[in-house]
Amino acid sequence: MPLPERELLQQLRRAVRGTNAVLGIGDDCAILRIPANHEALITTDFSIEGVHFRRGWQSAECIGHRCLVRGLSDIAAMGGCPIAAFLSLALPKNVPQRWVDRFFAGLLRLADRYGVELAGGDTSQSPGGVLADITVLGSAAKGKALRRSGARVGDRIYVTGALGESAAGLQLLTRKKIKRRDVLPQPRIAVGEWLIEERLATASIDVSDGLSTDLAHICEESGVGAIVDAAAIPVHSSARKVVNALDLALHGGEDYELVFTAPKTARIPSRIAGVDIRQIGEITSGKAVRISQNGRMHLLMSRGWEHFRQEDERRNRRR
Amino acid sequence: MPLPERELLQQLRRAVRGTNAVLGIGDDCAILRIPANHEALITTDFSIEGVHFRRGWQSAECIGHRCLVRGLSDIAAMGGCPIAAFLSLALPKNVPQRWVDRFFAGLLRLADRYGVELAGGDTSQSPGGVLADITVLGSAAKGKALRRSGARVGDRIYVTGALGESAAGLQLLTRKKIKRRDVLPQPRIAVGEWLIEERLATASIDVSDGLSTDLAHICEESGVGAIVDAAAIPVHSSARKVVNALDLALHGGEDYELVFTAPKTARIPSRIAGVDIRQIGEITSGKAVRISQNGRMHLLMSRGWEHFRQEDERRNRRR
Repeated sequence: MPLPERELLQQLRRAVRGTNAVLGIGDDCAILRIPANHEALITTDFSIEGVHFRRGWQSAECIGHRCLVRGLSDIAAMGGCPIAAFLSLALPKNVPQRWVDRFFAGLLRLADRYGVELAGGDTSQSPGGVLADITVLGSAAKGKALRRSGARVGDRIYVTGALGESAAGLQLLTRKKIKRRDVLPQPRIAVGEWLIEERLATASIDVSDGLSTDLAHICEESGVGAIVDAAAIPVHSSARKVVNALDLALHGGEDYELVFTAPKTARIPSRIAGVDIRQIGEITSGKAVRISQNGRMHLLMSRGWEHFRQEDERRNRRR
Repeated sequence: MPLPERELLQQLRRAVRGTNAVLGIGDDCAILRIPANHEALITTDFSIEGVHFRRGWQSAECIGHRCLVRGLSDIAAMGGCPIAAFLSLALPKNVPQRWVDRFFAGLLRLADRYGVELAGGDTSQSPGGVLADITVLGSAAKGKALRRSGARVGDRIYVTGALGESAAGLQLLTRKKIKRRDVLPQPRIAVGEWLIEERLATASIDVSDGLSTDLAHICEESGVGAIVDAAAIPVHSSARKVVNALDLALHGGEDYELVFTAPKTARIPSRIAGVDIRQIGEITSGKAVRISQNGRMHLLMSRGWEHFRQEDERRNRRR
């Protein structure tokens, strides 16, 4: 059954909840309280059907989850604590109510897990596919938020968890080896908070575009270079099953792990908040981002998920 | 020339600016400082091609302006001071760079006028038309933000400026009487701030969906009814030229004027911050929203801009 905009708006309103931190539900804006001596962190991220997801490839719950995790992961990268999310959602007329219910269920389950209120948003008809834009508000103690710009020569580079799961799934889907796959990454909120509390990290970013691209962002903003050890990259088990596993881990995006740097002398444990931490390289002078593999050194080019998408589109066109 | 996503992202980054209130440019989140003893106000609003605007009907500058004014007006309705805006922008491949430049120019001119920084956002390809989602962050002194829920029986109802300009333009466009029209509403920020400072308003909302719909929101949230005097409604001069002028002023949306209530004893001037203020009715007990016209009383049905759009779509289909 088609879903009129008015009903969608009412569904969003029912999903929106107020707590001590969130007032103004039903008003023109949500009213939010930022903890004393904290700064606000804000991020917005699009999830667009046909660009970021396909309804045929993932469950509605998974699409709702991934819509929110994009924003939560940005908060995690800064070491912040998420407070509230805002969802702008536009639906084409042919989207069944059941799909929308499941989309909200996936999004709200993740929100609950990280103590985030859905505090507002907007709804509209969409003339094309499903369009979602998520805004997440968080906070961090004044002056403490982790930035991309603090990496220094000699710092060690670390990554949380494992890389390549999302890209491996995407590759199998585009090559029609599988029909559906739900990948549900978790935002590394607790790791980011730990890094702020312990004051150990000099720079941090999340792996949304791919390690090669995101590490290059740290280097650009910090005015430094880097060397990554290929053998040290934690490749996700599902990526290890495909031929170009290391490429997926280096360049595949949407893993939502954190990459951070810390001084050589800092004691970074092998697990933080239950998540494996792996040292993968170090910060160098100059501007080049390089990778050492089998005793040889190469430039590590920034090839994010866009690259993969375009390659697979070309492959599909040739068929 | 088509605009690759990477270039669009760089254009957004160039447009993004940092001040004392906005840090973290180039980071995963913007870092923002909320003034001491203030609460954060947040709103998000979609502007979708084919739903909220058409590129053939309005200039790119106008579309950029209207994208931002939607959010600023929500801040104004709460009496807040805007701090920063975030733009999520998705473009189809065929949008010329020149159009995008002019869209940004229109948006940034309005931002400058109200001292708002464009502090971040997201970019994407769009598989359909132009998609923009604006998030605006503002602030108001703790506990002072104007809400929809404070109207009391006997309060007078006021409206700023004049109503019906956007709807009159839309009607002429859909009926093919004119080919293009730029309407550039201003957010009533200074009026909202004045109302907070003087502590005169009991409830407030902006006219985004149409007076009949937005006044009904105040009544619902406040648990009251209202009577509006048809003769007192300030009809915009451009609406007066069309047959159903009062309908446009009552039900046409996107005027971004404020509707507010104040106690009978409050002295509301006829101009606030250079904007005309008109008393249009009063709050009553019960739940009905009524209108008195030529000595007779009718129910005032909530018929927002969606109604107009659907009516005009039916009209166009019949042709």
